[in-house]
Amino acid sequence: MSLTDSSPAQIAQAAAVASRSLAVLSSDARNEALTAVHRALVQSKDLILSANAQDVELASKAAENGELSQSVLKRLDLGKKGKWEDMLQGILDVRDLDDPVGKVTMKTKLDDDLILERRSCPIGVLLIIFEARPEVIANITSLAIKSGNAAILKGGKESTESFKAISTVISKALKSTKVPRASIQLVITRESISDLLALDKYIDLVIPRGSNELVRSVKSQTSIPVLGHADGLCSIYIHADADPSMAVRIIVDAKLNYTAACNSVETLLVDEAVLETTLPQVASSLFEKGVSLRCDKLSKAALRRTLPRNQAAILQDASDTDYDTEFLDLILAIKTIPKTSSPTASVDLATTHINAHSSKHTDAILTSSESIADRFLNHVDSACVFWNTSTRMADGMRFGFGTEVGISTNKIHARGPVGLEGLMIYKYRVRGTGQVAGDYSEDGGRKWKHERLL
Amino acid sequence: MSLTDSSPAQIAQAAAVASRSLAVLSSDARNEALTAVHRALVQSKDLILSANAQDVELASKAAENGELSQSVLKRLDLGKKGKWEDMLQGILDVRDLDDPVGKVTMKTKLDDDLILERRSCPIGVLLIIFEARPEVIANITSLAIKSGNAAILKGGKESTESFKAISTVISKALKSTKVPRASIQLVITRESISDLLALDKYIDLVIPRGSNELVRSVKSQTSIPVLGHADGLCSIYIHADADPSMAVRIIVDAKLNYTAACNSVETLLVDEAVLETTLPQVASSLFEKGVSLRCDKLSKAALRRTLPRNQAAILQDASDTDYDTEFLDLILAIKTIPKTSSPTASVDLATTHINAHSSKHTDAILTSSESIADRFLNHVDSACVFWNTSTRMADGMRFGFGTEVGISTNKIHARGPVGLEGLMIYKYRVRGTGQVAGDYSEDGGRKWKHERLL
Repeated sequence: MSLTDSSPAQIAQAAAVASRSLAVLSSDARNEALTAVHRALVQSKDLILSANAQDVELASKAAENGELSQSVLKRLDLGKKGKWEDMLQGILDVRDLDDPVGKVTMKTKLDDDLILERRSCPIGVLLIIFEARPEVIANITSLAIKSGNAAILKGGKESTESFKAISTVISKALKSTKVPRASIQLVITRESISDLLALDKYIDLVIPRGSNELVRSVKSQTSIPVLGHADGLCSIYIHADADPSMAVRIIVDAKLNYTAACNSVETLLVDEAVLETTLPQVASSLFEKGVSLRCDKLSKAALRRTLPRNQAAILQDASDTDYDTEFLDLILAIKTIPKTSSPTASVDLATTHINAHSSKHTDAILTSSESIADRFLNHVDSACVFWNTSTRMADGMRFGFGTEVGISTNKIHARGPVGLEGLMIYKYRVRGTGQVAGDYSEDGGRKWKHERLL
Repeated sequence: MSLTDSSPAQIAQAAAVASRSLAVLSSDARNEALTAVHRALVQSKDLILSANAQDVELASKAAENGELSQSVLKRLDLGKKGKWEDMLQGILDVRDLDDPVGKVTMKTKLDDDLILERRSCPIGVLLIIFEARPEVIANITSLAIKSGNAAILKGGKESTESFKAISTVISKALKSTKVPRASIQLVITRESISDLLALDKYIDLVIPRGSNELVRSVKSQTSIPVLGHADGLCSIYIHADADPSMAVRIIVDAKLNYTAACNSVETLLVDEAVLETTLPQVASSLFEKGVSLRCDKLSKAALRRTLPRNQAAILQDASDTDYDTEFLDLILAIKTIPKTSSPTASVDLATTHINAHSSKHTDAILTSSESIADRFLNHVDSACVFWNTSTRMADGMRFGFGTEVGISTNKIHARGPVGLEGLMIYKYRVRGTGQVAGDYSEDGGRKWKHERLL
């Protein structure tokens, strides 16, 4: 980790050079570096927490003046119970994951003594732009070193003092390891980002973690591939045969477990057959938690007939744009899937709506029928498609990836929660014994064996 | 296949809608469509060849006037021996490949009755821009249908009549199949490309096949991911212990088997120890085939001492830019890797040069030592890294992929020769029985099992 006065081009070039050494380090060398980083952070707790206290103090004043939200302030504080320990444990957790480097994922005998292998390898140089949470720097450093990728980091300005302190500690710790110093570089000034985004010669992938505006702004500024999600507009479809109490539990969780998360539900599609049976139970539970419901005509009419008068009175009308809105708030848009000639026709109406309106992040169906569920899971074109579980399950930790760099709504490279695997690419190796292309000419040359060994 | 007067936005939207139906068709339905396309083309041979003859006639006039190169003219002619039959056989070859759709590539038991699966699925809508070779339209149609992706095609204008004839035949053939008509659409006018490149809402991936200028121009115009290679600057390094006769065979093949191909060799790195032994044999063989050699000082001096006078007289001096140039011509740049303290230090100089100058396409080492080869293959950051074989081996057909949509120098998604697998992404499916995120809260909730089943 280095905190540097270098120009963006120098930073990026140094990262590219360092990435080549890092890419060929042994698994042990990368793991030992993570152990060293962990040890150094443990020993520097007081130093880092006092730097963090400065950030918190400055941010508190800004929050008092209304210049900063309370939620940002809350996330800044590394002294909060368990946060420091979680950050340190995270480094060891990443260290102890399987090494993603050098895995052979294809092997073919092209001909005698001519063997093709596809092996996983690091991508190269990552540019990671993230929010103010100070513990993220340790998390990303671990992921980068474990995956053999160099990383250039730019964090939210509210955590500047914390980032500086942590990066100084990490930098010193890396000196005693085989990981090159320029593998992890912190940039402080916001201005350097637009310069870095132009350096496609050195930077292979940009990962913006933060607001939708940040992701969109990054995408519009660069020809470097961007991994991330600009939106999380997730839907749940209640099929006619869904279990009502399961529907209540799942939808309440999907809306309320973490309302501001990208994988919380924003649109509820309800089969007309259950408008007066399952929907009122769901609606009541949501009302109790303070959720506003924006309904289409059929669902509103049904709820007015079935809900207690005080609840029925506060139902809202949905506008068309509500079905294209990521509320990230205590608001849910409800749309009726009208009666059709068959259950599969209903599920097709739901999937058509979802493919037109969702952000291809996570969508779920609630149904007792496996064939209906399969049809939904096949037809919905989203990174995560769920049957009888909450959209909130879309998460690297829950998926067992150990950690994640983010959730991707891209349709190439990596989709959904992105763990270490998403930070890898591969290369093709061929080991020959003098064979040349001309040996295999069409008229009378040698024949390819193309025997798949793996 | 439809030839349409629709606007670019209508074309792209229709492709997006069609892609959803195509994505869920059975393997049989996609294969039957390819059989139908094959049959229809067989029956329409005369019609298509006479349309192609019109293109050839027009192009011949243009070539006579110097407005078109002879090489483009040559590639236009579908009547050339074997070309028609190869085109038809290619459709059946793609049909008979393994179905790439729906493969389960990861399976994890997250908890009891809560199963995560990662399954391959088509990307969605491809925009493929290609050169004038008329047979490519049948090849791409096969790849798109087999992989379950909708495709919008724009081919070089010299083949317009051939493309129209072939697309009309394919369109009629698809009518009797389950593949939606808008799955494959041909656009004729060049102007529509820039409009299509703005439609990132509908188009998921752009694949430009053609000149470097085309690829660069496409990349600069779009925020849609682009798969392709802008350059093919490939190198071969002759290590001190390389077998001399193998070096001659491989380098002659790599330069001359198809000089204008992206995987032909452009830079030769030669260990100082073999400047007067192996290099002269290589140089003589290349001279005999008409290759010009651009040498650095050491290699030039060595060749002047060892080559016959008539050959020594025509050696050229290399400039710095020669090591960054994709000649695609009978020219080879030669650079000496100077003596070092150890064989690994020499290979490190070679890999450092390659990582700084090559286009990350294909690079090869010639050596008798497995450990030296491994060091090279690990350190070189290119899509294809070869030991004792020709750079010309970097090819989807030779790799056993059946066919390729191109060779990628991207460092994300797909790298090297891209076959059907490169046209796939995946989605995560979770099948639950009512579990919600809140069940797994940190204080006293259920524990994740995260048992890897695949």
